[in-house]
Amino acid sequence: MKRPVRSVGIVARGASRVAARTASELTDWLLRRKIAVALDEAILRVRGMQGVPAFDPAESYDLVVVLGGDGTLLSVARSLGSNVPILGVNVGRLGFLTELMRSELYPTLVKVLAGEYGVEERFLLDAELHRASGSTVRYRAFNDAVIAKSAEARIIELNLHIDGRLVAHIRADGLIVSTPSGSTAYNLSAGGPIVFPTLPVAVLTPICPHALSLRPIVVPDESNIAISLDTPLEEVYLSVDGQESSNLGYQDKVKVKRSASSVHLVRLGDRTFYDSLRDKLGWGG
Amino acid sequence: MKRPVRSVGIVARGASRVAARTASELTDWLLRRKIAVALDEAILRVRGMQGVPAFDPAESYDLVVVLGGDGTLLSVARSLGSNVPILGVNVGRLGFLTELMRSELYPTLVKVLAGEYGVEERFLLDAELHRASGSTVRYRAFNDAVIAKSAEARIIELNLHIDGRLVAHIRADGLIVSTPSGSTAYNLSAGGPIVFPTLPVAVLTPICPHALSLRPIVVPDESNIAISLDTPLEEVYLSVDGQESSNLGYQDKVKVKRSASSVHLVRLGDRTFYDSLRDKLGWGG
Amino acid sequence: MKRPVRSVGIVARGASRVAARTASELTDWLLRRKIAVALDEAILRVRGMQGVPAFDPAESYDLVVVLGGDGTLLSVARSLGSNVPILGVNVGRLGFLTELMRSELYPTLVKVLAGEYGVEERFLLDAELHRASGSTVRYRAFNDAVIAKSAEARIIELNLHIDGRLVAHIRADGLIVSTPSGSTAYNLSAGGPIVFPTLPVAVLTPICPHALSLRPIVVPDESNIAISLDTPLEEVYLSVDGQESSNLGYQDKVKVKRSASSVHLVRLGDRTFYDSLRDKLGWGG
Amino acid sequence: MKRPVRSVGIVARGASRVAARTASELTDWLLRRKIAVALDEAILRVRGMQGVPAFDPAESYDLVVVLGGDGTLLSVARSLGSNVPILGVNVGRLGFLTELMRSELYPTLVKVLAGEYGVEERFLLDAELHRASGSTVRYRAFNDAVIAKSAEARIIELNLHIDGRLVAHIRADGLIVSTPSGSTAYNLSAGGPIVFPTLPVAVLTPICPHALSLRPIVVPDESNIAISLDTPLEEVYLSVDGQESSNLGYQDKVKVKRSASSVHLVRLGDRTFYDSLRDKLGWGG
Repeated sequence: MKRPVRSVGIVARGASRVAARTASELTDWLLRRKIAVALDEAILRVRGMQGVPAFDPAESYDLVVVLGGDGTLLSVARSLGSNVPILGVNVGRLGFLTELMRSELYPTLVKVLAGEYGVEERFLLDAELHRASGSTVRYRAFNDAVIAKSAEARIIELNLHIDGRLVAHIRADGLIVSTPSGSTAYNLSAGGPIVFPTLPVAVLTPICPHALSLRPIVVPDESNIAISLDTPLEEVYLSVDGQESSNLGYQDKVKVKRSASSVHLVRLGDRTFYDSLRDKLGWGG
Repeated sequence: MKRPVRSVGIVARGASRVAARTASELTDWLLRRKIAVALDEAILRVRGMQGVPAFDPAESYDLVVVLGGDGTLLSVARSLGSNVPILGVNVGRLGFLTELMRSELYPTLVKVLAGEYGVEERFLLDAELHRASGSTVRYRAFNDAVIAKSAEARIIELNLHIDGRLVAHIRADGLIVSTPSGSTAYNLSAGGPIVFPTLPVAVLTPICPHALSLRPIVVPDESNIAISLDTPLEEVYLSVDGQESSNLGYQDKVKVKRSASSVHLVRLGDRTFYDSLRDKLGWGG
Repeated sequence: MKRPVRSVGIVARGASRVAARTASELTDWLLRRKIAVALDEAILRVRGMQGVPAFDPAESYDLVVVLGGDGTLLSVARSLGSNVPILGVNVGRLGFLTELMRSELYPTLVKVLAGEYGVEERFLLDAELHRASGSTVRYRAFNDAVIAKSAEARIIELNLHIDGRLVAHIRADGLIVSTPSGSTAYNLSAGGPIVFPTLPVAVLTPICPHALSLRPIVVPDESNIAISLDTPLEEVYLSVDGQESSNLGYQDKVKVKRSASSVHLVRLGDRTFYDSLRDKLGWGG
Repeated sequence: MKRPVRSVGIVARGASRVAARTASELTDWLLRRKIAVALDEAILRVRGMQGVPAFDPAESYDLVVVLGGDGTLLSVARSLGSNVPILGVNVGRLGFLTELMRSELYPTLVKVLAGEYGVEERFLLDAELHRASGSTVRYRAFNDAVIAKSAEARIIELNLHIDGRLVAHIRADGLIVSTPSGSTAYNLSAGGPIVFPTLPVAVLTPICPHALSLRPIVVPDESNIAISLDTPLEEVYLSVDGQESSNLGYQDKVKVKRSASSVHLVRLGDRTFYDSLRDKLGWGG
């Protein structure tokens, strides 16, 4: 039993009209129950709601409701500072993270507001890009940190070190460092394994490697992963969750390790990860 | 620092002449150092050594030296009751488990006898075959427990449950449940990922699945994995480490979970799992 | 435009009650149109039809109708001596070979009887097992000739020669030699490519190979493929279309090449191979 | 037996110092034998050779010698108008196309100049980019025509039509259309099959497809392949042999079909494609 919810942040970024309408209905519903609401700024601009403040990831809320798809939730999850419980509500295609259907929203919220819910902790990755020039760029990843060549570039060469040890010299289109959460995303398309979401591991999956012996590898989440670009002149990028990116230069290094902060997903009922897999990948009888 | 070694068991099953000769030389070397030795029965029969007792896995030794390949070590590791440190000495092809070269044997033993060595714990799997008829067969697996159809059988159907939940109805040639140790063995050939050896996970990898969406999945080592055969009439087997097996009938069930006992491998120097991978799979620069 | 149909063989092996009923209805329907009918012996036994002779693959018919699934059609196709057009009617699960739905049977037959149909030629493979002992066993394959170890055997070693040239020394569970028709069957599960059905090629796909560089290879259909077993003592089989098999001994050799005879599948309407792929593999928009 | 060689073009683009020196030595060697030589312009600039004209792909030669790697040969092969025999001489890493070692150059040339050599024909692909705006860009590909998203773009959607038929709606990083020659290049890294080089087929291999059922497919070389981009706003490229490229816009269409012209590779001795595979992929005994 969690403590009751007194303040809710609502996010509906990149939202369809359905998400916007759901957001303003939900705001009314919560306000009627004397619960403080902060609403996505983009929605506020469209549907000005008197006295409702804009959602601010730096603020503290008892709950954040995300109306959207997995992509919206990814971006919110990365930005939240504290361990705020996040409830993902599906508006569109069924997601691995946003499993709650819109039709179940209000019955579910009644329970959540009363603290009747579980929380599943998902760890994040910190990805630091250390440029050969000396500057540093920092990212946080929920699904994955990906180093990949541009479409016009030739095959690139990467040196992969783990815990100070050279693991492989990789000639490939790129390399994915994935959390368990991200294992069903890009990692799966690139041939990586599906990973139970709360396991303390990261997955390293090469993208179209030249050497056929280069296979996905599952490593401890606390590993110090360092990848340096050994190819000059080609256009290469580090991108995070497919949403943010920087270009990568010759001998720039990307360090990836488990983040100190994590994401808390609200879990309801007895639906498990395996039920999602069975449904989404068609594994049923 | 471990406590000094006073008794050593020497195993060289399935051994070449080189292994046999090494075993008897090693026995002499240890006896000269006032260390008790028990020697593989098969070797004793060939090279009768006065007063040296036969190795018995039920006995307690401070150290067991395995002269052979990964296969020999697998079979010894499954049979040892207690957490005896095992030192694998390579006699033949380079292995993932028996990394010590024969030429390094004596310098290494000098350190080991003095307790100057590390130990890496590898967990085992318990695989229980519950026949529809009521009887039960129990196995212990170091690498993997594999359910597979015979070459003449058609595709088989398996129901996979984890923690009481139906995960997948699998039409395939079979299914591998692998430990991290086994991830570089059959699992790798079947398309599964490489797993860092001490991670608390098991890998489930279907063999030639009919549905292309059936992919390897990494689950917690404490999962209760249950696989039942849903195909009548075909010839199907459960086999363990590729070394022991039973046939499997319609609606027989195989339950796999982490074993209470584990294997302690002697580790020396600073060679890591990543160094082995790089060498064996040709990942180097 | 083909010559009109005056005699029809009907096969419904391994048939469900639906197939049996359809077979006898179809017999009546054809007899009313003065067309000679020969009916599957198994059906005749259940539903004795006065004066209707048993189907005999050695006889000559203008058309053979197969009521069943892909498996039934495979077995009929291998046994037919001449280039008889075969019409596969689906009774059960949608197949790649038996695409005609039962509901479309009679409208379709009206056209076929009038010679309004096309024919798609699919080549067969001849697989000869030459035992080290000197004896020879001959098979014909529509989908594939597969050499595979039994479930209890360890990894086997095969030497693959093409046109007298050593191509690979293969350590694996086995090797599939597939026709284009068979490319969507076992070959696909083992990681092989999909092949357009009338191409003059065969596909060699290793099953769970030890070496990760061993990948499927597409070769000319007229290649002389020879595979010899280089492992003593293990239980190994040659099987054809998953329906017939022989055991394979040490240094036995399997020779596979394109057969002189081929199978003629009746094609109707403008449905193409790509439409089947899109439907069966879910590639649609 | 071919007609004797009276004129030779020498190309050494992107050349190392070794290639440049070999080129000028070879020029002397040929001139001494009264054979007309045209030399790579880049080499001429560095090592001005009195009276030797610059190589011009539009000119007609009896033989073109390429000093370099597979990449250099690819680019020469695309540019040659006629069916000039090409002899690839390896300067650096062993290639699939440039198999002749530098040490074998002169003994080999003695035979080739006398017409004692075979020729292997490899077909090319014509790739036409039809922009939604109306303009057209034409490419010729020896290995492959690749449509791929840039590293920063999200997954793209492509509609694949063959012979006017929708084959698949593809969500992926991209799609490779490969010749048999290209099957051992990018296609292999992306999971496609190896294809015997003179087969009349093309291979379509999706790059990191979202749907796991999207697998490589082998189609007739005369297929009319059309791929249109169904994703707005993202950065996408068509690239050819990894050497030339254009960006691709929303609803732009790429048409690929077998080119009327082909490449003639000089073949010597009895070394076959299978020998190359065995050596390069380590398939040997």
